[in-house]
Amino acid sequence: MVSLTSAPPFWLRDNCPCPDCRDPRNGQKLFQITDLPAALAVAAVHDTRTADGAPAREVVWAPDRHRSLYPETWLAAHLPGAPAAPGDGRTEDDKELWAASRFDGGLPEADWDAYTTDPNVRAAALDSVLRLGFVLLRGVPVRDRQVLDVARTFGHVRETNYGELFEVRVEADPNNLAFTGARITPHTDNPYRDPVPTLQLLHCLTNAAQGGDSGLVDGFHAAALLRAQDPEAYETLTRVPAPFAFADERTELRAHRPLIGIDPAGRIREIRFNNRSIGTLRLPADRLDAFYAAYRRFGDLLLRPELQLDFRLTPGDCLIFDNTRLLHARTAFAESGDRHLQGAYADIDGLASTLAVLRREESAK
Amino acid sequence: MVSLTSAPPFWLRDNCPCPDCRDPRNGQKLFQITDLPAALAVAAVHDTRTADGAPAREVVWAPDRHRSLYPETWLAAHLPGAPAAPGDGRTEDDKELWAASRFDGGLPEADWDAYTTDPNVRAAALDSVLRLGFVLLRGVPVRDRQVLDVARTFGHVRETNYGELFEVRVEADPNNLAFTGARITPHTDNPYRDPVPTLQLLHCLTNAAQGGDSGLVDGFHAAALLRAQDPEAYETLTRVPAPFAFADERTELRAHRPLIGIDPAGRIREIRFNNRSIGTLRLPADRLDAFYAAYRRFGDLLLRPELQLDFRLTPGDCLIFDNTRLLHARTAFAESGDRHLQGAYADIDGLASTLAVLRREESAK
Repeated sequence: MVSLTSAPPFWLRDNCPCPDCRDPRNGQKLFQITDLPAALAVAAVHDTRTADGAPAREVVWAPDRHRSLYPETWLAAHLPGAPAAPGDGRTEDDKELWAASRFDGGLPEADWDAYTTDPNVRAAALDSVLRLGFVLLRGVPVRDRQVLDVARTFGHVRETNYGELFEVRVEADPNNLAFTGARITPHTDNPYRDPVPTLQLLHCLTNAAQGGDSGLVDGFHAAALLRAQDPEAYETLTRVPAPFAFADERTELRAHRPLIGIDPAGRIREIRFNNRSIGTLRLPADRLDAFYAAYRRFGDLLLRPELQLDFRLTPGDCLIFDNTRLLHARTAFAESGDRHLQGAYADIDGLASTLAVLRREESAK
Repeated sequence: MVSLTSAPPFWLRDNCPCPDCRDPRNGQKLFQITDLPAALAVAAVHDTRTADGAPAREVVWAPDRHRSLYPETWLAAHLPGAPAAPGDGRTEDDKELWAASRFDGGLPEADWDAYTTDPNVRAAALDSVLRLGFVLLRGVPVRDRQVLDVARTFGHVRETNYGELFEVRVEADPNNLAFTGARITPHTDNPYRDPVPTLQLLHCLTNAAQGGDSGLVDGFHAAALLRAQDPEAYETLTRVPAPFAFADERTELRAHRPLIGIDPAGRIREIRFNNRSIGTLRLPADRLDAFYAAYRRFGDLLLRPELQLDFRLTPGDCLIFDNTRLLHARTAFAESGDRHLQGAYADIDGLASTLAVLRREESAK
């Protein structure tokens, strides 16, 4: 049994579950950390039980005589020294990194009918987006604006200057290379936006053109390879904010962010890579040299064939992928051919919430 | 005249403005950095002129004989050693930090009619959000869902689990303390979301209750004070991811992010502070002690009366503020009184884009 007197008092008190400290209706904390007495200390600890009979310990606090009741199970799980807690699912620690051969046995996919009717299928599909970075829904109705309905099965559409949805097809006067028949090498979308859209959906309505195959690359995996092979290049790309920019008649977006975003613990958390929209870096010459050496090295890695998963979208397919992690690509296609995708952006925190609620409901059954 | 041969060759070539390198229709780069020859070097430089007669230099590249034409004005502005470039406007470097007395002469505000009809008034209001973190629009029509129209004057609404908009008034079974009459101390919204909504709008429809005054605190300013007064506490808050969480029947959101987010250059970029939704930290005891000491110190700073700007929203006011920087607060109000705000979230990159286009149009006149 862990001694409560060795637990940090402000931490322990901040987690008091009593109804004066925490709103029983919504679990929100009702006091400010600054409301606690500066001389806060555990005055006494008693073995006791919760209202429903579970073993617990009651702490009497000095100097304010507040009383807190902690179930033993909570203490065992949370006191310092307890097993590590899961993160928020967003860094490399919570992902399964992959190269293309990971999917030799097949893509992570789900049938639309099963996805919409069976919570287990839906949970598996959403889990795949969190863990692998993508899922392919098959048999999605081929109709205009359906992609928005797909997004709404797990979250909220992120509207941008491209609209609620965007049309990926050949346009007469394109404001973006995506809207031509050109080859597009692996990239993340909208790095010039901050916050960047964390999820992208691409729904295939027609794909009868010669070419126009799709590719996905795990940017976290590529960044981890770079870290292993060239730590200096990796370090440079985590530290230099790259000036991404996009402008058309009605828009002028800019975001200065590193190509490899890491969290305070140094874990890979966000990739931005887009040759089309990287602007002019302004640095001393030696730092420019270091950046370009690292950028080229990372670019080489991202183009390695064994990292890129190739497949072809057919009408009724809807690809959902993590735009902070996966890079997507497509081969060139004949502009005379008929190829039409509808795309939309959404956010991964909403998807993770939907999955958590699905799991909660499953475990309550 | 700067010598081009001393400019980093990959950097210079990456900025080649020729139509083979950059799509003249949209400015997007047409080549990959990995397409450039590994032995890239400047073979020759010639003084010349652009098509419209401006002085320029032509670079002939080895080994591929590509030719790039750089206007002298571009070189003067961008070559290493040129004056520092502006950032993306999101860090402390691009902000005017403030304490409450900054506004003794009045709040940054704009009249709705002028805002919607005069581009200069609109530009000044949007600039105030970027620079000071907020603006108050006065005389906004007092009608249901008007807050969404306000958001659409500069960007896109960010829909969340609270809906397209949320009602701030007393509710019978609130899932959030905001929907009671309780005092709410300075906080940022939705720290359990990632990406967090970067802008918040609050549109006052009724405020006839006793109490319910508003407050704003510049979180960047408070963080800068903490850095000056207690560098160790500041460092701790930039390095420890805090587990923010929110759950109700349909939602289970979590984000593990530091209270003070910094960019790779160490500049303050994002504040998350919300006592209600900070969960249970899982760290060794000594790190918990350090975190709580720093958290209390920052909390004390944020509650200093001289930092908090107090004012009262009246019907027709719409406050727009940077939710990554400013903390907002309200005094308690009588639940019997009539107080009703409608709120919405949006994103600041879209607002900055709208401002940039307004300025471009102004300077073209």
